[in-house]
Amino acid sequence: MVEGLAKSHPELIERIPDTRVLARIDKRPGKVGLVSGGGSGHEPAHAGYVGQGMLSAAVCGDVFTSPTPDQIYEGIKAADQGKGVLLIVKNYTGDVMNFDMAKELAEGDDIEVDQVIVDDDIAVQDSTFTTGRRGVAGTVLVHKIVGAAAEAGASLSELKALGEKVISSIKTIGVALSPCTVPEVGHPGFELGADEIELGIGIHGEPGFSREKIMSSHDLAKQLLDRIDKEHQFASGDKVVVLVNGMGATPLMEQYIFSNDVHEWLGEKGVNIQKTIVGDYMTSLEMAGLSLTVLKLKDEKWLELLNFPVQTIAWK
Amino acid sequence: MVEGLAKSHPELIERIPDTRVLARIDKRPGKVGLVSGGGSGHEPAHAGYVGQGMLSAAVCGDVFTSPTPDQIYEGIKAADQGKGVLLIVKNYTGDVMNFDMAKELAEGDDIEVDQVIVDDDIAVQDSTFTTGRRGVAGTVLVHKIVGAAAEAGASLSELKALGEKVISSIKTIGVALSPCTVPEVGHPGFELGADEIELGIGIHGEPGFSREKIMSSHDLAKQLLDRIDKEHQFASGDKVVVLVNGMGATPLMEQYIFSNDVHEWLGEKGVNIQKTIVGDYMTSLEMAGLSLTVLKLKDEKWLELLNFPVQTIAWK
Repeated sequence: MVEGLAKSHPELIERIPDTRVLARIDKRPGKVGLVSGGGSGHEPAHAGYVGQGMLSAAVCGDVFTSPTPDQIYEGIKAADQGKGVLLIVKNYTGDVMNFDMAKELAEGDDIEVDQVIVDDDIAVQDSTFTTGRRGVAGTVLVHKIVGAAAEAGASLSELKALGEKVISSIKTIGVALSPCTVPEVGHPGFELGADEIELGIGIHGEPGFSREKIMSSHDLAKQLLDRIDKEHQFASGDKVVVLVNGMGATPLMEQYIFSNDVHEWLGEKGVNIQKTIVGDYMTSLEMAGLSLTVLKLKDEKWLELLNFPVQTIAWK
Repeated sequence: MVEGLAKSHPELIERIPDTRVLARIDKRPGKVGLVSGGGSGHEPAHAGYVGQGMLSAAVCGDVFTSPTPDQIYEGIKAADQGKGVLLIVKNYTGDVMNFDMAKELAEGDDIEVDQVIVDDDIAVQDSTFTTGRRGVAGTVLVHKIVGAAAEAGASLSELKALGEKVISSIKTIGVALSPCTVPEVGHPGFELGADEIELGIGIHGEPGFSREKIMSSHDLAKQLLDRIDKEHQFASGDKVVVLVNGMGATPLMEQYIFSNDVHEWLGEKGVNIQKTIVGDYMTSLEMAGLSLTVLKLKDEKWLELLNFPVQTIAWK
């Protein structure tokens, strides 16, 4: 897959030889580097977001397995342009540990490294692979906002502060209609009847918090937004960005039907949707399902940064 | 779905009231209009390609069912800017007939209308819904190339000639690992064992020409390219564009693995891949599978047109 990405998009990215690191080809001296990554199986995350205006490099682990510290260290070196490197890490125990070890390796080379940890998933606390909340689809919004700010010249400390403020404003929850199968395991992570839906699933086949009978898109939107509302406490006039994210096997048609229901629910609350993003941005192999992310715009600049031009494979 | 598309992307498209037509919002007087569409269930085709540099309007039928002539007529009226309208039609009996009737309706209003028929699928001749070859994923390349030329100011007759030349240079073939289910039908279009692969499938659940045991991506790439080679008769130094298109439920990871194998096969033949496009561009609901499209670049300008800037939902 890594080789396929590099061969398919030589206009944007290159593979660092003998690694699983994909780095942008147009280096910009004096710009803070941004590195993300994690287990594979979430494509287009993260390599699809490497390029002008987003990530400097992505590190690809095995399927649903954190990349090793030495690989992440190669990613940091590829991203470093003399102004430091920010790591954007999803909150899983393995990722947090390995990115932290890579940070130490790079600091030994006098590369200044800092990090932000994304934990946008409100479904569960302390799940199979996490202490605290998991990092899921909202991570892509962090890549975009922080990536645009980095391109515009922000410093490492400014990017870290921005990233942390944005992360605290992102809430996500996901559902599955069918599970996914890790190739090396050979059987699905959980079983689900044809008439069942699992609420609160993660992006690694982790089961959710509740299994229910299948429901309409309208009712599903209401359930998920009720939960997000508990976090964001929506008020009339709030400005938000919505990301409807397909998990890999959900037709885009269904994602737009769902997006319509999300718009209706938020519209009734008087919430002002400033931007809507729909599609497969952070997948879980061939899982059928979707996640809903709502970013509360606490700063007008975030919307500008979301609309800042990019040159990547997957962000349009 | 139509409403969801319109609500999610007001910065790009609008729904023509009381229709299933989605039209670009930035009208450009004096530009030839481009209209496409067909049955729904192929998203992001076709509404995802409406916007600056591609289509003027897309007409959405029921799932896998041609839109009616009156709806297409509304699309033509929305696209008309006084310089005529080109229809880009996939070669299915229902679409060809309905777009033709809409053309006559529009001509009654003195709107000059012409059309091109896309028939890129080399898998079968005269299938369930077609006389001749079917129009499949290669249609998206026609939208992009002709759309860029229209934006750059080409006339209706120039666009028709360009479209026909491009269409004759596009060859596509598709495979499925699992079928799809039309919601109103309620059961899959064909049955496929877990260890089987169907070669030559269409984008409406039509069965293909051969069912085989599952094979590696490498072997599959060879089989499909051998068939495309019979059409294109590749020679060393040929310049091509490759589109690896997911059918809806195929992880992007697998699409990139396949793209790598396509690059290797074409590289061994000395064929020069000038651009590679990978992702879900013309889907078939939740079908698992992919199609491979190879456009032979008979004119250097086509690559420029493919890289011409666009503002659409789905073309990056």
